[in-house]
Amino acid sequence: MNTFAVPARLRALSRYFPVLQWGKTYSKITLTNDLLAAVIVTIMLIPQSLAYALLAGLPAEMGLYASILPLVAYAVFGTSRTLAVGPVAVVSLMTAAAVGNLALQGTAEYAAAAIVLAFLSGFILLVMGLFRLGFMANFLSHPVIAGFITASGILIATSQLKNILGVPAEGHTLIEFISSLIRHISETNFFTLIIGLTTVAFLFWVRKGLKPLLLKVGFQPRPADLIAKTGPIAAIVLTTGVTWLFALNSKGVAIVGSIPRGLPKPMLPKFDFDIWTSLIGSAILISIIGFVESVSVAQTLAAKRRQRIEPDQELIGLGASNIAAAVSGGYPVTGGFARSVVNFDAGAETPAAGAFTAIGIAAAAIYLTPLLYFLPKATLSATIIVAVLSLVDFSILKRTWYYSKADFASVAATIILTLTLGVEFGVSAGVGISILLYMYRSSQPHVAEVGLVPGSEHFRNINRHKVETDPSMVSLRIDENLFFANARFLEDLILNRVPVETKIKHVVLMCSAVNIIDTSALESLEAINHRLDYMGIKLHLSEVKGPVMDKLQSTDFLDGLTGQVFLSQFDAHQALVP
Amino acid sequence: MNTFAVPARLRALSRYFPVLQWGKTYSKITLTNDLLAAVIVTIMLIPQSLAYALLAGLPAEMGLYASILPLVAYAVFGTSRTLAVGPVAVVSLMTAAAVGNLALQGTAEYAAAAIVLAFLSGFILLVMGLFRLGFMANFLSHPVIAGFITASGILIATSQLKNILGVPAEGHTLIEFISSLIRHISETNFFTLIIGLTTVAFLFWVRKGLKPLLLKVGFQPRPADLIAKTGPIAAIVLTTGVTWLFALNSKGVAIVGSIPRGLPKPMLPKFDFDIWTSLIGSAILISIIGFVESVSVAQTLAAKRRQRIEPDQELIGLGASNIAAAVSGGYPVTGGFARSVVNFDAGAETPAAGAFTAIGIAAAAIYLTPLLYFLPKATLSATIIVAVLSLVDFSILKRTWYYSKADFASVAATIILTLTLGVEFGVSAGVGISILLYMYRSSQPHVAEVGLVPGSEHFRNINRHKVETDPSMVSLRIDENLFFANARFLEDLILNRVPVETKIKHVVLMCSAVNIIDTSALESLEAINHRLDYMGIKLHLSEVKGPVMDKLQSTDFLDGLTGQVFLSQFDAHQALVP
Repeated sequence: MNTFAVPARLRALSRYFPVLQWGKTYSKITLTNDLLAAVIVTIMLIPQSLAYALLAGLPAEMGLYASILPLVAYAVFGTSRTLAVGPVAVVSLMTAAAVGNLALQGTAEYAAAAIVLAFLSGFILLVMGLFRLGFMANFLSHPVIAGFITASGILIATSQLKNILGVPAEGHTLIEFISSLIRHISETNFFTLIIGLTTVAFLFWVRKGLKPLLLKVGFQPRPADLIAKTGPIAAIVLTTGVTWLFALNSKGVAIVGSIPRGLPKPMLPKFDFDIWTSLIGSAILISIIGFVESVSVAQTLAAKRRQRIEPDQELIGLGASNIAAAVSGGYPVTGGFARSVVNFDAGAETPAAGAFTAIGIAAAAIYLTPLLYFLPKATLSATIIVAVLSLVDFSILKRTWYYSKADFASVAATIILTLTLGVEFGVSAGVGISILLYMYRSSQPHVAEVGLVPGSEHFRNINRHKVETDPSMVSLRIDENLFFANARFLEDLILNRVPVETKIKHVVLMCSAVNIIDTSALESLEAINHRLDYMGIKLHLSEVKGPVMDKLQSTDFLDGLTGQVFLSQFDAHQALVP
Repeated sequence: MNTFAVPARLRALSRYFPVLQWGKTYSKITLTNDLLAAVIVTIMLIPQSLAYALLAGLPAEMGLYASILPLVAYAVFGTSRTLAVGPVAVVSLMTAAAVGNLALQGTAEYAAAAIVLAFLSGFILLVMGLFRLGFMANFLSHPVIAGFITASGILIATSQLKNILGVPAEGHTLIEFISSLIRHISETNFFTLIIGLTTVAFLFWVRKGLKPLLLKVGFQPRPADLIAKTGPIAAIVLTTGVTWLFALNSKGVAIVGSIPRGLPKPMLPKFDFDIWTSLIGSAILISIIGFVESVSVAQTLAAKRRQRIEPDQELIGLGASNIAAAVSGGYPVTGGFARSVVNFDAGAETPAAGAFTAIGIAAAAIYLTPLLYFLPKATLSATIIVAVLSLVDFSILKRTWYYSKADFASVAATIILTLTLGVEFGVSAGVGISILLYMYRSSQPHVAEVGLVPGSEHFRNINRHKVETDPSMVSLRIDENLFFANARFLEDLILNRVPVETKIKHVVLMCSAVNIIDTSALESLEAINHRLDYMGIKLHLSEVKGPVMDKLQSTDFLDGLTGQVFLSQFDAHQALVP
């Protein structure tokens, strides 16, 4: 089929249904590759799904449900060839924080609220996709994301210690977790602790020691890597077996217990005005965090194969996935880093691999659940701890400290506030602080008084270079947009530079770095012009950019300007210096 | 006394106590001028103080109290020679909105909360002054302030209609006011309506018709202006007299009634954790709005006499005034436009005029209050309506519509949200929206692909000018700071410009308008460098500014950069074009 022969309507359609693009060229080889990747991802996803459901405070089966229909929805609407969606660590933690405000863990209301959260997130992502609001994710700076992920990793690991010790504990902040653990530490269950610690040690060894070992005995790097990734499955099989064999559940080891067999019945979440409105803020945060996390994974993988992803369509893909999660008894999902890398490395070529994975998970939900009865919760918590500790990375603190104190302040605040006041407050504050600090920097811009470099047409900072100046003229180069945050600064600056009794006859503002002059700055320029006029001094502009000049010409500012607008600072110098 | 002989300690002290500066040269002539101005301002301030207390929902005497000690505090700490502080319309409305959430009008709790609000505002202003946080006011753009003042004027005028009709009504938004009025319209009191409408008509005539008349009969412009400003006093005397004469209060005309005689006893507001924390947000808004309003009045007047004001010290002056209001039974105050202009026009030379005005108001509180018993509330509401309608000015909508759609959106949102959801939400949303729109604009910056102007060393937009380019080299000039809001945009832009199969060997980013590269943008540049390298393309920078280059050199970015950093775009062209 020739792409150019596709009718326009179908082409438009295939923008919203990327499956129509890659589906056309689907071949037997692609199918084989996708199937193989699906098997490997399925094996990896079963323990992850159970574990993250536990982290979110939800019944284990909801983790499985969130790994079935959402994958099919993403296969239809997503633009990444290799992204694997489903429950992920940070979003599970955020779900626990959001839903924990409304209901107690273990209640039907708690699970229902998680489903509503998925529905709202899906709706918000779809709206953002349809109205092309993906730029909103830009307000999350890299350092804020890095700090947030690191702090979330610490929170998640700490929150899982209760299952390693076998004690009850709860909370949403580091202090709550730790104080709760300390209160209950005397109730530690010996068998649970043994299982937990052994599993953690085993998984760390698998991660750090097994792959080198496999390489040593002759495996290729790729299969060695994939085998090492099945470590959690081995841990589950072994600890489940031991628990069943010695009936450790009767000795206080918490187990997953009975999981309903079969697939969830599709249904819409119940509408309750109070619950929906109280979840909407959390849903926005989860949507944006999930989107940013997912897109950065998808972009990294796409770049490796010189493919492209469409951020706005990704919003629709993730939105559809979350709606799918909501109608099938799941909870908020997004593209996960670890599983997408496994999918990529295992050779997945199209999103069909995700659909096949969904079939695998569905089969697990139908046939495997009875086998998970004796699975200790400590094992799942151990897999979570080992997985999230790789997220913890404080190097961003050092990097930003040396490069930008403003970025350092944002990341430090994000980490501290996420740990002490919870995920939602932490990430919101991080965004707010980074915006405010940027505005603060813009509100006190670098301004250079410039003079002519002798024998040239160039103007440079009088403090850095030997330049010619004339006492009748002050030339100021403003290295920032002129807008509301620095409009008053500009007034103060110029009136400070020009004393009441002065020989100055001309003030020239060199605008080569000014890309915007907003209404506030325009009014300030008018005020400056007016006050200088009062003192017998003319105000001039030079090197005003095309788009800025177009704007100024649409107002009467230039009519009232006492001086002129010069194309170049040199022109101004030629015209004004006697 | 010679200024240069003043010991350093005294000079430092006089920064925080401007009274030490102007006090030194205080003369008999200055005293005479200040006294005259004080008499005129006192006459004007009595009805205003009563009216604004009514607007804030407070007992009339609190308006007088707020016009005594705060003026003395400002005289000591303020830097404007002519600013007159006291209760003002917008801050009174904001007080009503803030306190109305906590208590019912007319209760002791309501008045106590207003005093706490003044105390908190004073404290916040002092902290902002001591830590030089005055820049925070910069986040209020001119259009947002203009929109907010206009919307507040409409809200205030509407809220006062109830007293003109003589019906009960309440609310904090336009819809609440109007629907409340409609519900009660049948209860309209005929005598109240007559007094209200007559006073409104009289005051409008005084404003528009009296001054021309006085000029015609031979008055000088300045005394004519000042006489016209005493209109409200005439209205009060007349309507009070009529009400007393015909005992209209027995016919349903609401009167001010008995006002406690004498001065308030100084005392600290009672501490109540819940009330204080629930007022802190409102106090911050009131502080910033009051500060912005006051400083712009002070700056306008100072410029006319070539004086200077110190914004950071103004924070301290207003902070002290509000603390003074709180300890003397007043409510939040700030510098008012109308009364400051009167003070200025009446010839006030130093803040001592304010202190003398305070004595005048104190005398009124002691001796005049019994005379105000029969003063109809309708008269006060009429003076408020006439005063605030001059604040209403929709021209900002037209101006921003033609100049900047972003500013138009901010001002329209501020007006609509202030009218429909109240003052606090309106102004907060205005600030938030203007910041977000600025960030949005910065997130999609103007980028020009540039080429060499033949026969010169200049580079210009290839779409606007006839320039030379080479297929092996793409030069992009980015007209914006590189930071988190546009880091992803930059990646997309460059990867879109460079197709997978290409003759391009060099990409040059011309950074002449880049004043900041933050950590996010640095990471994006690293990613771009990496991906271009993968495609066999080198990344170069040109015209990087000094401060930005210093930052880059502190990282290992330049070590990893595949290309070079050129001093000028022409150097890049010379070196790279074969």
